[in-house]
Amino acid sequence: METFFNPSSVAIVGATEKPGSLPGVIIKNLLDMGFKGNIYPVNPKYKSVFGLMCFPSILDIPGKIALTVIAVPAPAVLDILKQQARKQVHYSIIISAGFREMGTEGMEMEEKIKQTASEHAIRVLGPNCLGILDNYTNFTTSFLPRERVSKPKKGSLSILSQSGAFAIALLDLAAQEGLGISKMISYGNRVDVGESAFLPFLSDDISTKVIAIYMESVDHGRRFIEVAKACSKKKPIIALKVGKGAAGIAAAKSHTGAIAGRYEIYKAAFLKSGIIEANGLEEFIDGVKALSMQNPPKGNRVLIITNGGGFGVIVADHCSENGLEIPPLSDQLREKLKAQFSGFYVVNNPVDLTGSASDEDYRIALHTCMVESDEYDAVIIIPLMAPQGMSEKVVGLIADTMRSSGKPAVICTVGGAFTLRVKQLFEERMLPVYPSPERSAQAMSILFKRKILQEGILHPSR
Amino acid sequence: METFFNPSSVAIVGATEKPGSLPGVIIKNLLDMGFKGNIYPVNPKYKSVFGLMCFPSILDIPGKIALTVIAVPAPAVLDILKQQARKQVHYSIIISAGFREMGTEGMEMEEKIKQTASEHAIRVLGPNCLGILDNYTNFTTSFLPRERVSKPKKGSLSILSQSGAFAIALLDLAAQEGLGISKMISYGNRVDVGESAFLPFLSDDISTKVIAIYMESVDHGRRFIEVAKACSKKKPIIALKVGKGAAGIAAAKSHTGAIAGRYEIYKAAFLKSGIIEANGLEEFIDGVKALSMQNPPKGNRVLIITNGGGFGVIVADHCSENGLEIPPLSDQLREKLKAQFSGFYVVNNPVDLTGSASDEDYRIALHTCMVESDEYDAVIIIPLMAPQGMSEKVVGLIADTMRSSGKPAVICTVGGAFTLRVKQLFEERMLPVYPSPERSAQAMSILFKRKILQEGILHPSR
Repeated sequence: METFFNPSSVAIVGATEKPGSLPGVIIKNLLDMGFKGNIYPVNPKYKSVFGLMCFPSILDIPGKIALTVIAVPAPAVLDILKQQARKQVHYSIIISAGFREMGTEGMEMEEKIKQTASEHAIRVLGPNCLGILDNYTNFTTSFLPRERVSKPKKGSLSILSQSGAFAIALLDLAAQEGLGISKMISYGNRVDVGESAFLPFLSDDISTKVIAIYMESVDHGRRFIEVAKACSKKKPIIALKVGKGAAGIAAAKSHTGAIAGRYEIYKAAFLKSGIIEANGLEEFIDGVKALSMQNPPKGNRVLIITNGGGFGVIVADHCSENGLEIPPLSDQLREKLKAQFSGFYVVNNPVDLTGSASDEDYRIALHTCMVESDEYDAVIIIPLMAPQGMSEKVVGLIADTMRSSGKPAVICTVGGAFTLRVKQLFEERMLPVYPSPERSAQAMSILFKRKILQEGILHPSR
Repeated sequence: METFFNPSSVAIVGATEKPGSLPGVIIKNLLDMGFKGNIYPVNPKYKSVFGLMCFPSILDIPGKIALTVIAVPAPAVLDILKQQARKQVHYSIIISAGFREMGTEGMEMEEKIKQTASEHAIRVLGPNCLGILDNYTNFTTSFLPRERVSKPKKGSLSILSQSGAFAIALLDLAAQEGLGISKMISYGNRVDVGESAFLPFLSDDISTKVIAIYMESVDHGRRFIEVAKACSKKKPIIALKVGKGAAGIAAAKSHTGAIAGRYEIYKAAFLKSGIIEANGLEEFIDGVKALSMQNPPKGNRVLIITNGGGFGVIVADHCSENGLEIPPLSDQLREKLKAQFSGFYVVNNPVDLTGSASDEDYRIALHTCMVESDEYDAVIIIPLMAPQGMSEKVVGLIADTMRSSGKPAVICTVGGAFTLRVKQLFEERMLPVYPSPERSAQAMSILFKRKILQEGILHPSR
């Protein structure tokens, strides 16, 4: 699998400098990223492309080639694959669309590709995909111009996606959310390698700590459960299954030609493999962010601290809906807090510091309840930034106190420009921020689910 | 009620220029907003406050006063109320916290205020509230500094909120989402006027077109249903009920002293009154945005158009979950589209224009399916902005075509900086944009719910 992420040499077929040409954008992106392997543009029409020597065909390239990237019209793909077989190139990423997802004719072309690849022992990623982005080797086959898609920083999240558009949107969102990426793998119609092939690789990959899967259908049901089970023992996997109802299943079929199958079966398989399932794109990205930035809590006893009472109420509602407990403060803890706070602060769970709250009040509440006491396993903190007593300093106070507690926290804060700046500061300190009470409760429940699944896997007798 | 929004003269008790003082910030905000009525600061310590003549007591102000704004510590409120009774001021907004929400002692103080107000025929808004913002008369009692909370533009949404923090967050979000506001009313502990008093007023208010209610408890159950029913015949009302489960109910009690009561009863009351209920802050603001920007569809037949197949699949899934139909294209419509499009576009529902889509392809698809044909009642459009064929021009093409169709549309687009700029352009054209497939489906279903409720109300025999 390594070759897909770090090929020593790569041939890009159909290379031109024409604006809008996919192979051209791929070469530009590789050069921009600073990829260190050899790049061989292939096109009989040109002598050079973007300053690189261009070859009439794959066969004309001197020396060995590790991988081809094919982004030409569908009917031309088979011949290129046959050529690369003669040149003994054993890996190929086929970006081109126009196969199974287009009906009978496309399906026949795809079958021929599958057969040819198998005969010549070529491992194929795609077709109808975006291919690879590796943030550590700087290898990419993305054909989207840099100015349209923000590049996320290096990090620990790896993405497996049947949909290319989805993978790219996720990268763009990750950049926006301050979330670091290790690898993105988009496999589209998946004639050969898919999630079951990549999961064991990601399981052993040291730069990957969290795995996110977008799935319309699965490649090999049993094998998938087996490898996912092994992988989720080591790393959290979160999945978004799409194509659930009749309308979605039909849509999936014309998207990647996927037979989405009965949703209930997927649900059971995820549970069996220790995969956390997200319902919708936001729960998916929210969960990924929580799992990337925080550890699972030991239990489900959650404290809520806020300076906006109404938000505390909504978070409490959604915690209950998501299987989290909001136990009242013990008398002892209540007295300790009362001794430190103004009389009209509401010393309860939620702790409501009211509109008069200062940054320091947050530190006091967290230190008293999460560092000095062990009544709560985790905390949802809702610092609204509108009141005058609040400043950017609250970020450092909260981050430092939580670090010395050793317990997980998620942040909810709602508002405009000033709030967004504070959000960024929190996320630089690895505290995940959510823009609504319900999403912060959901993110915490995903952390707790990871705990439950880990225990289920570690203690299979339960 | 008018007096609360447009007082000819207002006395601000406890006025100082000290940084952090609530009455001081209120006066500053009134001056900044350009409020045209007379402002009378009251404080025996000063001769003038922010350039306005300051009076030792309410009784010293010459001439009539329409309204007092009281933002002093709780124990001092009662005396001020008695003073204003002597001066014959019949309206008061009590910002101060520290009453019912604090337990027995606070409850007693609150009861005395209630009694005194009733004896002297003073209508009271509050206590423990943020009061009023009127974007047309420029009257406000907000005590939050301007640089912390963005001011939304003039518009047609009015907000009724038991929680002040919630109301302010909503204003901040509205500003961010390009949503115009008419009035914000925060009533906190609600000793006197609450939602049942304000709904008839908003029902007749010409600048209000959509009403949003944040509710922990209701003031008068039966009266509320009656006035809400009458109001929702004219204008959509969307409500967020918080304090649902045990933890939330307890939290609501210590927030505004509200007895939240059984959630099922609220659910039934909303249905009976034609109120749309939102589950969570995001569904609330998403629904408000859809209702403010678009009309309800005639039926539930939804077309999906995208250039990112995976997103089409997720939207289809969530439409099904939310009671919307995704009927396949008729043969006739399919042929018409095929004749105009490249062979590998997926001509189906969802229409998948693939990564090769151009701005103009969106116009063609919409014109053919929504203007020339009547197969669909509404459309969810998912223009992903990463591919090269897409530009900002797509906004005008979509907006113009939808206008000539006379049918509602919502937009979903996902991504970073470039996408956010395009979002803003769409919203300037009154097309609501959502950052995830599930939220766009939900927003469309809220538009459809409004249609159903309208019909239920117009045809009660059903």
